[in-house]
Amino acid sequence: MTRKLKSRLGRSTADQIFVRGHDLTEELIGKVSLGDFAFLELMDRLPAPPESVMFNALAVTLVEHGLTPSTIAARLTYFGAPEALQAAVAAGLLGMGDRFGGSIEQAARMLQEAPAGGDRREVARDIVAGYRARKEVIPGLGHPIHKSADPRTTRLFALAAENGFSGPYVRLIELIAQKAAAVYGRDLPVNATGAIGAIASEMGISWRITRGIAVMARAIGLVAHVQEEMEDPMAAEIWSRSEEEASK
Amino acid sequence: MTRKLKSRLGRSTADQIFVRGHDLTEELIGKVSLGDFAFLELMDRLPAPPESVMFNALAVTLVEHGLTPSTIAARLTYFGAPEALQAAVAAGLLGMGDRFGGSIEQAARMLQEAPAGGDRREVARDIVAGYRARKEVIPGLGHPIHKSADPRTTRLFALAAENGFSGPYVRLIELIAQKAAAVYGRDLPVNATGAIGAIASEMGISWRITRGIAVMARAIGLVAHVQEEMEDPMAAEIWSRSEEEASK
Amino acid sequence: MTRKLKSRLGRSTADQIFVRGHDLTEELIGKVSLGDFAFLELMDRLPAPPESVMFNALAVTLVEHGLTPSTIAARLTYFGAPEALQAAVAAGLLGMGDRFGGSIEQAARMLQEAPAGGDRREVARDIVAGYRARKEVIPGLGHPIHKSADPRTTRLFALAAENGFSGPYVRLIELIAQKAAAVYGRDLPVNATGAIGAIASEMGISWRITRGIAVMARAIGLVAHVQEEMEDPMAAEIWSRSEEEASK
Amino acid sequence: MTRKLKSRLGRSTADQIFVRGHDLTEELIGKVSLGDFAFLELMDRLPAPPESVMFNALAVTLVEHGLTPSTIAARLTYFGAPEALQAAVAAGLLGMGDRFGGSIEQAARMLQEAPAGGDRREVARDIVAGYRARKEVIPGLGHPIHKSADPRTTRLFALAAENGFSGPYVRLIELIAQKAAAVYGRDLPVNATGAIGAIASEMGISWRITRGIAVMARAIGLVAHVQEEMEDPMAAEIWSRSEEEASK
Repeated sequence: MTRKLKSRLGRSTADQIFVRGHDLTEELIGKVSLGDFAFLELMDRLPAPPESVMFNALAVTLVEHGLTPSTIAARLTYFGAPEALQAAVAAGLLGMGDRFGGSIEQAARMLQEAPAGGDRREVARDIVAGYRARKEVIPGLGHPIHKSADPRTTRLFALAAENGFSGPYVRLIELIAQKAAAVYGRDLPVNATGAIGAIASEMGISWRITRGIAVMARAIGLVAHVQEEMEDPMAAEIWSRSEEEASK
Repeated sequence: MTRKLKSRLGRSTADQIFVRGHDLTEELIGKVSLGDFAFLELMDRLPAPPESVMFNALAVTLVEHGLTPSTIAARLTYFGAPEALQAAVAAGLLGMGDRFGGSIEQAARMLQEAPAGGDRREVARDIVAGYRARKEVIPGLGHPIHKSADPRTTRLFALAAENGFSGPYVRLIELIAQKAAAVYGRDLPVNATGAIGAIASEMGISWRITRGIAVMARAIGLVAHVQEEMEDPMAAEIWSRSEEEASK
Repeated sequence: MTRKLKSRLGRSTADQIFVRGHDLTEELIGKVSLGDFAFLELMDRLPAPPESVMFNALAVTLVEHGLTPSTIAARLTYFGAPEALQAAVAAGLLGMGDRFGGSIEQAARMLQEAPAGGDRREVARDIVAGYRARKEVIPGLGHPIHKSADPRTTRLFALAAENGFSGPYVRLIELIAQKAAAVYGRDLPVNATGAIGAIASEMGISWRITRGIAVMARAIGLVAHVQEEMEDPMAAEIWSRSEEEASK
Repeated sequence: MTRKLKSRLGRSTADQIFVRGHDLTEELIGKVSLGDFAFLELMDRLPAPPESVMFNALAVTLVEHGLTPSTIAARLTYFGAPEALQAAVAAGLLGMGDRFGGSIEQAARMLQEAPAGGDRREVARDIVAGYRARKEVIPGLGHPIHKSADPRTTRLFALAAENGFSGPYVRLIELIAQKAAAVYGRDLPVNATGAIGAIASEMGISWRITRGIAVMARAIGLVAHVQEEMEDPMAAEIWSRSEEEASK
């Protein structure tokens, strides 16, 4: 038996390069934006215009969050290994795990694995009760700074409505947030990761790859942070502050 | 003395998030594509339309190259650590160093550090002579598969001409390629990394960050490869082939 | 309130460096071996002689497994980024996750979370029944090559007996293996990861850090593979085999 | 043509595992310490007793430096991705580059590439003059905290003398330090990385792999830092301090 191992993502001949079946030079370079190309890579087809607006919006939301554990780790790594920009970006990406990128994944999974049909309020109630019984945090709700409403969620849900992606998953996470607020007695608005998880679900993106949207977006932000670290170094100061006496 | 450490890239208040001085929810989400947002992150301003076309084209060229050392490393890592998609992507990025992403950087550096003015043919000749004397490979020239012309270069240089980025750096690398072909007695066309290094130079991007364009683009491709590995695993077969007898 | 953030692992003054409270130059360098120093780092005290023999044996077992997904990923990364040996080692370590290093952790967790007391045969029976009901693989049992007995397990269990670490955890995993063999109708011997998980439990090492023993040991092996890749490169051949037609 | 790709480091059959030609279970587990096993991996033979003392001493010196950019990056990564201990360790290793582990490599390279023979004082003088002319820092000299003498160097050089490794490389770096102090007009003692680079050179270790000794040693320290972060989390505090107002 003979088998040629090959990726369906890309292949090349002496004269042509194909990505997802499209001729890279004839059909893609100069014609398709980076965000649409990312959609093509993941979904095996180019996006329709509303999909393009929505997918780019999800990714744009995730690129840049200022100084975070992820960007600080990248800066500290660049400080120690200035020969390898790619290693500093990789170090930053390594922190996009269960606590950060993972909350999108967990929110999308919660929605995609929810029982279909039935009274959606009851489904939401059961989901909240389940997390409470397991003493687990409900993914995609609440934010340490944006207490009453996450401005990104408001914007993303408005865009979803405009572009035809405000369907059952968006509805369900809103019901979960309402129920959670009632049960826990405090504001627990849908945060940006919950909104992204819900809208990605509307777009047919499997929860298994939603963390990847955060990873690809954040790689852009991390490159920018390494560039800023080259021009305006902060790593030594961050290191020094970690050890000094601090008034709290 | 009091100083607040802060990145100029992003900051947030209770109600607003700013990226490079723009209100993220009001001005960017839903209005700016991922590629243009990457330009904003790196260049501290949104791109003009020709800049948008050109920057997205450079990045799109770098996303996907099929099964390469970088994507194979990501697949093998996912095989061992399926709990952490971000680690598989990071492992793939770690190989985007001097040999791969680095050739863009080296080509851009060669062009940006070339002497200004004078007869450009003489400048090209001196550069080729310098690499030859140091027994170093001239970055951005030649390709193992695309012997006579890299189709991506042809396309990128045409786009550069259409969008106003076919200036002195593009001219210089073409002169270097001509001179190198004459000196070494074989075709040494400008390859995609040389074209990207030259055009990035035309766009005012420092050579120090050009490797980062490859890194951010390839992060997208690596997420897609991890998704494919989830659905159509190849890692065990790659491992097995590494050890078996092979007819060559 | 004032607090000095500091690690209890190490600190330095102008004249002295302390590790876990020991003066590095006076008490450790030249007096303590690398393996014993690792024990000190993890356990906050130097090992007694039997602990030293046992801990070094566990780590030694995990250093080198030849060409594996982890070492192949390191070689491919070094091929792309020869400027950063540390990145190649890191890429290899990233694959020491749930499937590889993780099986030690899972075996140790299974043993450390098992109910205390009672008839140990019944405890083993219940554990096997639990994994079977959840359709999960029992960690630490079976091996694709070493079908009937893993030679490392035989050796490690003999050493454990000689050094006073053949206690209830070793007994329990042996009972689990016997029960599993009966239930599944095939040989399922305790493999090296199961033996290490059991012996680490005997030594008082929390299951949460057992994966770390594999990580520290494998870092040594990965450095050696990068050295071999420098001297006898295989990465290009591994890449090439991944793409070619293969007879199977 | 037929070729079997295989590493000379390790291979296994159904009954036996070999590392560098030694039967792992019969000859190594329980008989060889982790540090000696690392020597075997790198040098293709087990160490003689003085080699064992010296090699373990070099590695022990490099394991633990308290809170550094590398260990902080690992802690921040663990904070974001608690599912993958190996990724936190890898993130920490990524910073062991040109600035940290690299100084050992650069010192060893300087010594191993120095001209043989002649008046060693003149060789040292020429080396110092060369670095000065290129405006480069001489690797292996000086330390921000240990101004007049690095206590680790004193100890390592004493051990080297006791064990027969105080030869021409140790002599040369001491001459370089004397000459540099005279030329720059300030104390520039051989620091720990310089001492390690010199002694590794005495032991026949190629400068190309000396950075790897730091990498393997630091992997141990990073596992211990992740363990401490599990038990006594500091990452959130480090993040918070990075952003707050600080009195300096």
